[in-house]
Amino acid sequence: MADLWQNAMDYAVAIARKAGEVVRDALRDDMKVMTKSSSVDLVTQTDQKVEQLIIQSVKEKFPTHRFIGEESVAAGEACDLTDSPTWIIDPIDGTTNFVHAFPFVAVSIGFSVNKQSEFGVVYSCLEDKMFTARRGKGAFCNGEPLKVSDQEDIKQSIIATEFGSSREPEAVDKIFSSLRNILCIPVHGVRGAGSAAINMCLVASGCVEAYYEIGIHIWDVAAGSLIVSEAGGVLMDVEGGVVDLMSRRIVAANRRAIAERIVKEIDSFSPPRDDTPPSKQ
Amino acid sequence: MADLWQNAMDYAVAIARKAGEVVRDALRDDMKVMTKSSSVDLVTQTDQKVEQLIIQSVKEKFPTHRFIGEESVAAGEACDLTDSPTWIIDPIDGTTNFVHAFPFVAVSIGFSVNKQSEFGVVYSCLEDKMFTARRGKGAFCNGEPLKVSDQEDIKQSIIATEFGSSREPEAVDKIFSSLRNILCIPVHGVRGAGSAAINMCLVASGCVEAYYEIGIHIWDVAAGSLIVSEAGGVLMDVEGGVVDLMSRRIVAANRRAIAERIVKEIDSFSPPRDDTPPSKQ
Repeated sequence: MADLWQNAMDYAVAIARKAGEVVRDALRDDMKVMTKSSSVDLVTQTDQKVEQLIIQSVKEKFPTHRFIGEESVAAGEACDLTDSPTWIIDPIDGTTNFVHAFPFVAVSIGFSVNKQSEFGVVYSCLEDKMFTARRGKGAFCNGEPLKVSDQEDIKQSIIATEFGSSREPEAVDKIFSSLRNILCIPVHGVRGAGSAAINMCLVASGCVEAYYEIGIHIWDVAAGSLIVSEAGGVLMDVEGGVVDLMSRRIVAANRRAIAERIVKEIDSFSPPRDDTPPSKQ
Repeated sequence: MADLWQNAMDYAVAIARKAGEVVRDALRDDMKVMTKSSSVDLVTQTDQKVEQLIIQSVKEKFPTHRFIGEESVAAGEACDLTDSPTWIIDPIDGTTNFVHAFPFVAVSIGFSVNKQSEFGVVYSCLEDKMFTARRGKGAFCNGEPLKVSDQEDIKQSIIATEFGSSREPEAVDKIFSSLRNILCIPVHGVRGAGSAAINMCLVASGCVEAYYEIGIHIWDVAAGSLIVSEAGGVLMDVEGGVVDLMSRRIVAANRRAIAERIVKEIDSFSPPRDDTPPSKQ
């Protein structure tokens, strides 16, 4: 069984690299010929193209596997995590960055069996950094082992987060209130790469001590979650319980005490879950 | 005269590259042997070492030139910009990033004569990107010409800013109020590299449409300001007037209309000026 998933993981790495090439080509060749104003269509096209490339490639090799993909869900497919082997795909994590050629754009591929994450692959394609993790086997960047920061003091920590895409006043109120509380603990700094997958890899690499966000989707964090755990980090819900990847809320940190300190300052809320059918929302 | 400053600029590029090597070596060799908690001493040491390297190198070649350097001012030297040729130096812009090996760390060297900027050099040393500009001669990154974004629509724009280092409630209030106003224009996104010099280079490169900040110092933005202007961008005070690099306030944007739109949303304040002697503050 172990060999089977190692095989699938090697395949995922190869697909992610190929997908990253498509993303880089789109930025280099297509973006140059359009104004920034028309670039939103390029994102949609490239997003769909990359997701199809990944799904088709997997289907050829693993015809019985299931998928949760950002674009497929947007097109109306169900977002169900069953016990079947499931590939959880974000073809371009950091689409706003993509439009602006801001250097953090990732292809994210998670893989679960019996609802347990078996491997995660995040390819930061403009930096050419391939982050990988396999359950119980550690996390790596371009083959080098990753380890979370050893920082114990929240005041010496950098925290990553994002403002998210909602501009609803209530959500914005809570996002700003949490951020202000955390900044004034005080922490050493607050950063945001503009990509949830890359923010998780920054935690795994020890560049930031923690990352939290409300509003992300399972495809943004499925791969990154395993990369953080395998690098020695912890995952938590924003209210401190066990993380639920369908709940659109996450805290990832180098250690439990840092995660718990952040949780104290988060003014939490609950966006509609990823696994709620649109009609129920 | 033109040749003289070109000569000085070529020298500045060579010094910045050498300084960047010292920064990279410190991160690679020294940081590994210490815990994150003791790394603040490494920053101070490396900051001082790099500034001394730059100042000594310049003095050998241009013995009559003057200096404004972050570390020298911290050590009590005056922060005066006279008509004399003056090198304005930030040895490590993004010290918090440096401590955490977050990938945006820059050496910034500006050069003014008769209070006019003649050239600017920003070396983003972990990305190995050398940004340069000479007055009237354009801006470049690793020799490739830079051009600001052509985006006219603020709603499609990414704005860069920072939370700054002050945790005084009044300053934090204003920083959060400005940020919220801008986010809810709405803009496409808000980012921050954690280095003023690199944020300015992101404007010049067209990756973000604008950058604003209150609390920066002349050594953070002297080089970047010319890089933005020479890439076709504009500079402005946060209240809309002419920018004053001693005032610790700046807006840099791809075009005037974007800068003016941001100015409308900024809840401004005035930190003590860089050229006020400490006794007067």
